[in-house]
Amino acid sequence: MSEPYSPSARTRVIREPHRGVYDRATAYQILDQGFIWAYGRAGDNLYIHGSAASRMLRNLDQGIPVCVTVTLLDGLVLARSVFNHSMNYRSVVVLGTATAVEDREEKLTALRAISEHILPGRWADSRQPNEKELKATLVMRLPINEFSAKVRTGAPIDDEEDYSFPTWAGVIPLEMVARTPIPDERCDPKLPVPAYASKYTRDGCR
Amino acid sequence: MSEPYSPSARTRVIREPHRGVYDRATAYQILDQGFIWAYGRAGDNLYIHGSAASRMLRNLDQGIPVCVTVTLLDGLVLARSVFNHSMNYRSVVVLGTATAVEDREEKLTALRAISEHILPGRWADSRQPNEKELKATLVMRLPINEFSAKVRTGAPIDDEEDYSFPTWAGVIPLEMVARTPIPDERCDPKLPVPAYASKYTRDGCR
Repeated sequence: MSEPYSPSARTRVIREPHRGVYDRATAYQILDQGFIWAYGRAGDNLYIHGSAASRMLRNLDQGIPVCVTVTLLDGLVLARSVFNHSMNYRSVVVLGTATAVEDREEKLTALRAISEHILPGRWADSRQPNEKELKATLVMRLPINEFSAKVRTGAPIDDEEDYSFPTWAGVIPLEMVARTPIPDERCDPKLPVPAYASKYTRDGCR
Repeated sequence: MSEPYSPSARTRVIREPHRGVYDRATAYQILDQGFIWAYGRAGDNLYIHGSAASRMLRNLDQGIPVCVTVTLLDGLVLARSVFNHSMNYRSVVVLGTATAVEDREEKLTALRAISEHILPGRWADSRQPNEKELKATLVMRLPINEFSAKVRTGAPIDDEEDYSFPTWAGVIPLEMVARTPIPDERCDPKLPVPAYASKYTRDGCR
């Protein structure tokens, strides 16, 4: 457990309150494993990137309230009753005001954080951003001050009288896995597949 | 391609417009493969379920505008330049007005559709919902009238002058897979693991 954290009225988990988790360590582990959305975390900030031409991100430019959600699905939970079927998951909600990163160095640091978040090791192997590309990329900073996590783990929970119902019950674990990398047709066949691509995994351990 | 469909001003894809896909067959295939959110599709309706005590769904009760998004992540796209890195994905946005399903038979049909959407075959093996459970479950109907899909597939696209940059480039395919089912401690060891659990897969083919 990291430092104590009190959820706000907006982030306190109302439905299934026993699944609410309010410590930064748990929330950050989920944020660090997720990545559908292109974002990165550096300390207590989330960085989000997008095109400077994006209507949505352009509107964020002045600093506007946003709600970011990240969900990791860990398994299907098969109970005896239809009603008690569930999923195992870990999710985080972050509420706050996102503002544009103007400083060139912070922008580069943020872009590297996003890149390393998704594919550690790739940044150094790639052609670095030039000034035109930096200008075309908008980076927003969202301080992680108001947040909550919600987590379900473990076995199904059936009504006591249903445990004798004659059907298999348990959990089907689900996991995102990487398959064998597919080289671009124009990739020199002499270039080896880097380990960060051939052994890609998201285990949430950082 | 299914019937022609014209996106509305709200669902026309503005960023990367060449990735916009406006036919129902594509959108439905994505909706049918996704499932993080507990929903099901029956014909041209999406059904969403939740607790009758949920504040969010309670507020939907009168019929309110919603925006549903489903995203499937298919791969990381490694370009030569940092700037041209991307992801392969398939996503759908559905906008519309969700209303509560009041009719008992439609509610049961919708719950079965949601269950079969997530885990085909499980409904028939489970203890069926009783009247109390049906009452505690709210089901919303969202007609799929205003929607769009957005899809990226294939290799990285680099600036022409970057193709000689000496780094591996290509795609890391990503896939959600099921691991060996874990029986509940209280599950009779004589009950076999059903095939829909031991061979669980989401291939989007239905």
